[in-house]
Amino acid sequence: MNFEAYRGARVLITGGLGFIGSNIAQKLALLGARITIVDSLDPLYGGTLANVEEIRDRIRIHVGDFRDRLLMEPLVRETNIIFSLAAQVSYIDSSRIPFDDLDLNCRGPLQTLELCRTQNPEAKVVFASSRLVLGKIVRQPALEDHPTEPLSLYGTHKLAAEKYHQLYAAQYGIRTAVLRITNPYGERQQLKHSKWSLPGWFMRLALEGKPITIFGDGSQLRDYIYATDLADAFLAVGLSSTPPGEVFNCGSGRSVRFREMAETIVRVLRRGTIEFVPWPPDYERVETGDVSFDIGKLSRMVGWTPSVSLEEGVDRMYRYFASRLPLYL
Amino acid sequence: MNFEAYRGARVLITGGLGFIGSNIAQKLALLGARITIVDSLDPLYGGTLANVEEIRDRIRIHVGDFRDRLLMEPLVRETNIIFSLAAQVSYIDSSRIPFDDLDLNCRGPLQTLELCRTQNPEAKVVFASSRLVLGKIVRQPALEDHPTEPLSLYGTHKLAAEKYHQLYAAQYGIRTAVLRITNPYGERQQLKHSKWSLPGWFMRLALEGKPITIFGDGSQLRDYIYATDLADAFLAVGLSSTPPGEVFNCGSGRSVRFREMAETIVRVLRRGTIEFVPWPPDYERVETGDVSFDIGKLSRMVGWTPSVSLEEGVDRMYRYFASRLPLYL
Repeated sequence: MNFEAYRGARVLITGGLGFIGSNIAQKLALLGARITIVDSLDPLYGGTLANVEEIRDRIRIHVGDFRDRLLMEPLVRETNIIFSLAAQVSYIDSSRIPFDDLDLNCRGPLQTLELCRTQNPEAKVVFASSRLVLGKIVRQPALEDHPTEPLSLYGTHKLAAEKYHQLYAAQYGIRTAVLRITNPYGERQQLKHSKWSLPGWFMRLALEGKPITIFGDGSQLRDYIYATDLADAFLAVGLSSTPPGEVFNCGSGRSVRFREMAETIVRVLRRGTIEFVPWPPDYERVETGDVSFDIGKLSRMVGWTPSVSLEEGVDRMYRYFASRLPLYL
Repeated sequence: MNFEAYRGARVLITGGLGFIGSNIAQKLALLGARITIVDSLDPLYGGTLANVEEIRDRIRIHVGDFRDRLLMEPLVRETNIIFSLAAQVSYIDSSRIPFDDLDLNCRGPLQTLELCRTQNPEAKVVFASSRLVLGKIVRQPALEDHPTEPLSLYGTHKLAAEKYHQLYAAQYGIRTAVLRITNPYGERQQLKHSKWSLPGWFMRLALEGKPITIFGDGSQLRDYIYATDLADAFLAVGLSSTPPGEVFNCGSGRSVRFREMAETIVRVLRRGTIEFVPWPPDYERVETGDVSFDIGKLSRMVGWTPSVSLEEGVDRMYRYFASRLPLYL
């Protein structure tokens, strides 16, 4: 895709030191964008300066909280495009810290939109939402109008935030777009724990010579989207002139079984073993069953298509982390 | 219906001095329930001590904020049934005070549920939601599984709070129920302004000899549910043993045109005039079009049916306010 228009563009990335944000920053830096990152480096999440090591001298970083209005106001004012990624990102943790989840995943994005409305109504805002707004998929593959019955506070709050972006588009003309992300994985993702993005966790276990544990038989379908494909999707939507307020499914469009993902890691790395154990009750309650996503809308309206296969993605991820593992633990 | 089980029951009503809450309290007091009310008496809303004048010596009132955890914790702990009505109630104001709307309509109810989970998981919680979670009705009459595309922050936050009640039922077994209220009107409603519940505003205009103004041709369908019918619905759901987390449409089940409501007021009061003017842009943006609701689920599962016709409701409302108008301005 042609991303030349990013040269010299002022781009703000909240959560820009995290997994997805830093992959976006990496691409934007090579394109010559003027990048500002706001990231709290909260140790609960995946943000780390290691994620921007190669582009450190080409970006401006504010280590701070995107809910801090005084920090954000001047940054929003001078921005052309905002990639809104700062979040509480664990659906499991959301029931343990319900008010933090509400504040980070609703009030934060709402304030960003309010700042756009009052300070810079021309800015484009691309918001990172999640397949977890849907809950169990009852119509496969899921389209954007699939029922939304989230099984977690995380999914509930992401859903509310999606609707903020639709409302601010409809009521104030703010140029928003929402990407409803399936299961992202790849370079720059956190490897600290198993609370989200299990490909990274499984790769770590394999690299450390520990067995990979799978709950149940691992037959559930998942749609894994590779980091750089996902970053391209954000970049493409950021430049696109789709009507404000559109929601787009964003995944690979090709679902595989959960255990295939683990098997691919073992095969590509040529190490590791897989063990199957029963579901713990806390997980099963929010398990969403099979997931397959129709990504036709994003392809048609924005011209983006993913290109990295699971095999290739695992290989690229492996090459990224092989030399950097200690930085991500 | 048989509400004898309320005798001696400990009932907590947040927003209990407001329109719906005080109608519930009025009925409960006559049934011999032990009633505690938390109400902030925020002048923006309809809460007033005039609403509980007849039962003042039979209820305990805390003038305070239901978001105050220290106030609420002991009250939740000792309660059998909670009617959760405290809210920011204006969809129009929600875009003017977005963070207040979020805090009142999401964080407040979420905290009430958290207090139930940690202090009193046996309590029953009946939550007041709104037809505005649906947005435009695209399938008439709307059933409970109608798509939810709210056109306001108010509707978005009510929708999130509905989902809290479903999640706390599914994850923790809290005995929650949600009433999705159509257009409530009647005795004890606020008459201060036209931001919500227009039957009251129109009655005030008629009583004051001022013309009633209708935007557009007034042909849109609305489902008006009378205050005492609505209070009965809350009481019935409060005692019912429906599965936790159910959402119920709650309306009259009989839609009438908006202008018929105004005409009924003029006819019953034998005074007033009606004028038609174009829609102001701020209103039209969140206008939901025709509204008709299927209330079969609530009738079938709880045994409640409304009994007050629009004609009778307007007449009862008139008799209530005729002698009390100054208390409600």
